[in-house]
Amino acid sequence: MSGDLIGKSIPMIDGLAKVSGKLTFTSDLELPGLLYGKVLRSPLAHAKILNIDTSQAKKLTGVRVVLTGRDRLYPYYSVAGQSVLDEQLLAGEKVHYVGDEVAVIAAIDPDIAAEALRLIKVDYEELPVLLDPLEAMREGAPLIHPDQQSNVPYKIEFSRGNLLQGFKESAVIVEDSFSTPLQYHGYLEPHAAVAQWDARGRVTLWIPMQSPTLGRITYSKALGISEDQVRIIQMPIGGAFGGKLEYKLHVLCALLAREANRPVKMINTREEDFLSGLPRVPMQIRMKLGVRADGILAAKETEIVADSGAYVNYAHGILLSACHRHDNLYRINNLHTKGFLVYTNKLATGCFRGFGNPQVHFAYESLLDMAAEKLSMDPAELRLKNAIQAGDTTPHGWKVLSSGLSDCIRQSTNGADWNTKRQQKQENKRFARGIGLACCLHVSGNRTFLPYFDGACSDIRINEQGKVIVFVGETDLGQGALTTFAQIAAHELGVDISDVTVSYVDTDTSPHGLGTFGDRATTLGGNAVRLAAIDARVKLLTVAAAVLKTEKDELDISKGIISSVTNLEKKMTVAEAAKFGWAQLGGGLITGQGVYIPPDVSMVDPQTKYGNISCAYPFAAQVAEVEVDRLTGTVKVLNMVAAHDLGKTLNPLLAEGQVQGAIAQGIGYTLMEDMGMKKGIVFNRNFEKYNMPRITDVSPITTIFVESNDPNGPYGGKGLAEPALTPTAPSIANAIFNAVGVRIKELPITPEKILRAMEDSNI
Amino acid sequence: MSGDLIGKSIPMIDGLAKVSGKLTFTSDLELPGLLYGKVLRSPLAHAKILNIDTSQAKKLTGVRVVLTGRDRLYPYYSVAGQSVLDEQLLAGEKVHYVGDEVAVIAAIDPDIAAEALRLIKVDYEELPVLLDPLEAMREGAPLIHPDQQSNVPYKIEFSRGNLLQGFKESAVIVEDSFSTPLQYHGYLEPHAAVAQWDARGRVTLWIPMQSPTLGRITYSKALGISEDQVRIIQMPIGGAFGGKLEYKLHVLCALLAREANRPVKMINTREEDFLSGLPRVPMQIRMKLGVRADGILAAKETEIVADSGAYVNYAHGILLSACHRHDNLYRINNLHTKGFLVYTNKLATGCFRGFGNPQVHFAYESLLDMAAEKLSMDPAELRLKNAIQAGDTTPHGWKVLSSGLSDCIRQSTNGADWNTKRQQKQENKRFARGIGLACCLHVSGNRTFLPYFDGACSDIRINEQGKVIVFVGETDLGQGALTTFAQIAAHELGVDISDVTVSYVDTDTSPHGLGTFGDRATTLGGNAVRLAAIDARVKLLTVAAAVLKTEKDELDISKGIISSVTNLEKKMTVAEAAKFGWAQLGGGLITGQGVYIPPDVSMVDPQTKYGNISCAYPFAAQVAEVEVDRLTGTVKVLNMVAAHDLGKTLNPLLAEGQVQGAIAQGIGYTLMEDMGMKKGIVFNRNFEKYNMPRITDVSPITTIFVESNDPNGPYGGKGLAEPALTPTAPSIANAIFNAVGVRIKELPITPEKILRAMEDSNI
Repeated sequence: MSGDLIGKSIPMIDGLAKVSGKLTFTSDLELPGLLYGKVLRSPLAHAKILNIDTSQAKKLTGVRVVLTGRDRLYPYYSVAGQSVLDEQLLAGEKVHYVGDEVAVIAAIDPDIAAEALRLIKVDYEELPVLLDPLEAMREGAPLIHPDQQSNVPYKIEFSRGNLLQGFKESAVIVEDSFSTPLQYHGYLEPHAAVAQWDARGRVTLWIPMQSPTLGRITYSKALGISEDQVRIIQMPIGGAFGGKLEYKLHVLCALLAREANRPVKMINTREEDFLSGLPRVPMQIRMKLGVRADGILAAKETEIVADSGAYVNYAHGILLSACHRHDNLYRINNLHTKGFLVYTNKLATGCFRGFGNPQVHFAYESLLDMAAEKLSMDPAELRLKNAIQAGDTTPHGWKVLSSGLSDCIRQSTNGADWNTKRQQKQENKRFARGIGLACCLHVSGNRTFLPYFDGACSDIRINEQGKVIVFVGETDLGQGALTTFAQIAAHELGVDISDVTVSYVDTDTSPHGLGTFGDRATTLGGNAVRLAAIDARVKLLTVAAAVLKTEKDELDISKGIISSVTNLEKKMTVAEAAKFGWAQLGGGLITGQGVYIPPDVSMVDPQTKYGNISCAYPFAAQVAEVEVDRLTGTVKVLNMVAAHDLGKTLNPLLAEGQVQGAIAQGIGYTLMEDMGMKKGIVFNRNFEKYNMPRITDVSPITTIFVESNDPNGPYGGKGLAEPALTPTAPSIANAIFNAVGVRIKELPITPEKILRAMEDSNI
Repeated sequence: MSGDLIGKSIPMIDGLAKVSGKLTFTSDLELPGLLYGKVLRSPLAHAKILNIDTSQAKKLTGVRVVLTGRDRLYPYYSVAGQSVLDEQLLAGEKVHYVGDEVAVIAAIDPDIAAEALRLIKVDYEELPVLLDPLEAMREGAPLIHPDQQSNVPYKIEFSRGNLLQGFKESAVIVEDSFSTPLQYHGYLEPHAAVAQWDARGRVTLWIPMQSPTLGRITYSKALGISEDQVRIIQMPIGGAFGGKLEYKLHVLCALLAREANRPVKMINTREEDFLSGLPRVPMQIRMKLGVRADGILAAKETEIVADSGAYVNYAHGILLSACHRHDNLYRINNLHTKGFLVYTNKLATGCFRGFGNPQVHFAYESLLDMAAEKLSMDPAELRLKNAIQAGDTTPHGWKVLSSGLSDCIRQSTNGADWNTKRQQKQENKRFARGIGLACCLHVSGNRTFLPYFDGACSDIRINEQGKVIVFVGETDLGQGALTTFAQIAAHELGVDISDVTVSYVDTDTSPHGLGTFGDRATTLGGNAVRLAAIDARVKLLTVAAAVLKTEKDELDISKGIISSVTNLEKKMTVAEAAKFGWAQLGGGLITGQGVYIPPDVSMVDPQTKYGNISCAYPFAAQVAEVEVDRLTGTVKVLNMVAAHDLGKTLNPLLAEGQVQGAIAQGIGYTLMEDMGMKKGIVFNRNFEKYNMPRITDVSPITTIFVESNDPNGPYGGKGLAEPALTPTAPSIANAIFNAVGVRIKELPITPEKILRAMEDSNI
């Protein structure tokens, strides 16, 4: 091992650029002849388009292009890997939600573009609006997509073991319904794009996007060109949280640029982002859990109705994840699960930190506490009895090579002084305190996503100054992937991290990678970078050995200096070796290539949903301490202790940042956030009305890292960014129950719901 | 061999982008917060700076930065490989020519920057001005650079054989003096730069530059940072002709951007470009040639005084090239040569198509005709008797592996109907016609340039769509290098050329290469691309062989399809193989690497000037037919027949374009162009007054390609772009002599000079 950087707290290498305002975001981009695009969105949730009159808009000085779905037919498409093609770039016959794209305009100035929008006259014929998924899935409901047979594009059903037998063995059966809201990602940077076509018919898109590779696949289909004709240059991302995978604005921008024969920029206003982003899939979850007298989980029956909104997008995958990912958290063999993805006349939903897990964990982890209560068993003990262990293969075929779940439960409860605080009686206090525990698991990359590839590739080049540039397909969303990759490369090559740069993704020059989602960046991308660095290191040492007249195995690199381990006189700098390599030996620059394909990982069987979808599974346990005001119903989170089995802590500073950010976002999900609708219109579509946690809403957070050293992780590391959000809602809900004895099963847990529940239970 | 593209006339792959105005040049670039820079230039040719008052300029609204060489000391630097460091970014104590950089300003608007320039007050004390190099090199002349011992920074002297003996054997000795003017490159796009610094202290320069690698070396020294901290992104080049190597404006732009902490753009006006470009080095050449009675060249004595202008820049290398490159054109063993590089108070001179060769060939090829005349020998016959042949090692150590010189002489004279036209008597005609021949040679890359590397590297990647991207360090100046590289890659890989893209150079991502100069792009870069394509082809076939269950040697690629040569059923597309390679086999994208180091090539010995500087030497012979108006002295070029030994014609269309463009530029050099000075000020500093050839000044041109198939060239190819200009001046001068019997030895050959010469000779 060359360096000593793994496990070190290294600040983000792009931190200075960010705080000093030096980073160029998409909205900052300028190109000669740039036009500004705007979208006319449907004001109605469901309507037939009778006529669109663009004549006045086209006449406005400065308007260059006006496009509608009436002028030409836009082919149906969807996101990468999605076979239900239900989206058009611009609405043809119908609009399906308030915000649906009806027309786009490019003008020489954004104000002119906005003014031109108001000059477009659209005649609609209103259609019945379906906002409730239960109503939408009813037999005979009007079809949102008339070419489909129902409003349920996907049904999922699978069984494991013997459900009846499992319930028969149960001493306690708990059953309840839970529901989760529409959560907005709340990134600082709204969706943005700049597009320009070249003379050979290729489009370059500068976009802040998690997966340029998936973007290329989807956008080429939507534009009717080959994938190669789409070049995506990833711009710095001002927050994503899953929301910045494929997004229609990117394609519309390309469409306008093609038509105008000039570059076009499009930036969502915050309101547009609220109206047409891809927020978290709301779910209604009915779950029934049987537990034996000894606390062993015996059977579980689950039914999930997921509100897809107007289009499927990634909601099918999210529903599948919600249906079966949590089954791998505890040992449980008798299962029956049904999932329904349902169209409604609301904005389409999509990927969001957790990918279905926060929804279903809220139900599952609440129900576990309900069972423990009935069993008079400590909830931590119940979980410990069932926690998945390294070496387990779960009923879904997941091969758990490492699990620190039991340790996470023990360490988080110890850290939170669980045993003492759990027993405190709160009956007579106005400000009642309670403590609650919840666990979760996640993946490190998810093989179900794209059929043909789930690996990561990296190229490294060392220039003649000894400076290292890392190319990799996984993007930095703000979570610090650039820093982790630089750290891994510097560690393997024995150079200072300040000598390492990591390139943003450019589909023309970066090696292939699926991008950042499903907690795959560090595990898969990190492994690829590590392999590329090792490859480059061997080449560097081979050159140095030739110059120093020794064997390469005799050499080590430390602090940028290559030296013989047996003869300290024999040494040269990395820069000297690199320059010698290309100049004197004529080998070109020192480069390294790394390709990491996760081993023993497979697609989920389409029928049985069986398959080991990831190479490494992270686990977590989180203890929330809350104070509930019995008078107002207000919940204050006093303290959080989060224990995460992330395999190996590569960079404690950044890892802790992930946990803190995720808990803050989780507190919002649990207590505050909900995109409210009136007639299908999001009414709280700005940060004034949409209630996200401020710093005063976030408790102190104690982060504990459990290192289970996964054999597939780079240095043992696994995913972290997504699971860090998941246990927040159930841990708070369980703590509220501990404090005031009421169980809220509908997120967000608002003061009103607590007051009503306390009233109902006559407390 | 996979494809069938070598020797095919393929239009420039970026032609459509250029003619449709789609290409973004540097002047088109926009960046957020962009400032505009302007240079205050010295109005005096030689003066001490007593004081600079920038207070008024700094007060002007919109001005952000004002820098002068009085505020801080700028270190002395020069171009890559130059050891005489005589330039400062901004004048410190003195200005050395009219145009010398005194101050720079960055403002929010270019007009404000220009206005602020006028508010800077500089007090000068005038110093004696040296404009004539002969005067400047005189003992006791005032020193232009007082820290140097004389105004002659470089003297070159070498001998070969026995000069006295050679002259003793000569039947005829001719001796004369020749002089050549200051020629402006006349590219369409003036010098331009955009610079921006990042938060980590790296500067990115977007510049139209022939050699980003050399730029990085020079600019890092000038800016006092490491080479790695300079990233150069090559922009499309609107013509260069040698003039777009290192240029001070690029560094000044970086300097302003660093000071302003904002990006800065600087674009020369045409006038600024005339005042501070790096035009062709003027030379005064005294040459004495002895020829035996049988026409064998016996001895040559040469003395060259080169006018460097205020700084050395690349003029030392150019003088060396002028001193000894032409000695390798004909067999001649007894030589003595002296060269003096002299400072004057004029703008610095630099590289220009031919690199000293057009100057000295004008002298040498004129003198050869004078000797032939004395010998009563046909000038073509004289040249054929002495022409260098393949297998020769010249007195300077050049190893000539291929030479089509004799063929070029024969084919150009035949093509021009030499024998008939040469004999036509013209005495009594007002419009006298004449025909003249001249030859030349050149290099294909020049090892004297940089000590440590003279090769080229290329990376190729094939994406999963089967599209090929070529990365190489050699730039396209407009000559078509992108097309040649694409053609070579497509040829080797068996794909259509429309499937190949060639990246512009980015020093962060492109492989190392010295860039484009010395006719190195096709020969060195082309070889590297060829090797990279062959490497990628092997990988492609290895994948295909695994899929098709055959051996890779059984497979061939044609039109993008890989198929078995023995079983035509076994086939797959390149795209399928590439996708299979990264996805199923998990090998990442198919890539190829090529490194070409020219074999058996060495540095010139600093003392003896002996060494084989290039891997392949191109030759040419050119016949000019002119008509001279005895009344006005006007010369009309009627016809040109240019025969070029370019080794192998890779793309006849582009090769012919090079010859045509070079001859047009050569006609300007011969008959029209001269940067006139009054007190050191270029007075014809715009295209209205600087007389370049228009299309009506250019004759019909017949181009003949002689294919000598050099063993080192890619497919046998050698350089072409530079030699195509060189023989133009002497061929026209020789034709004028043939027409009207006067020999003009001073370029440009203006009507006045002809009239005066005819008067002097009483014709």
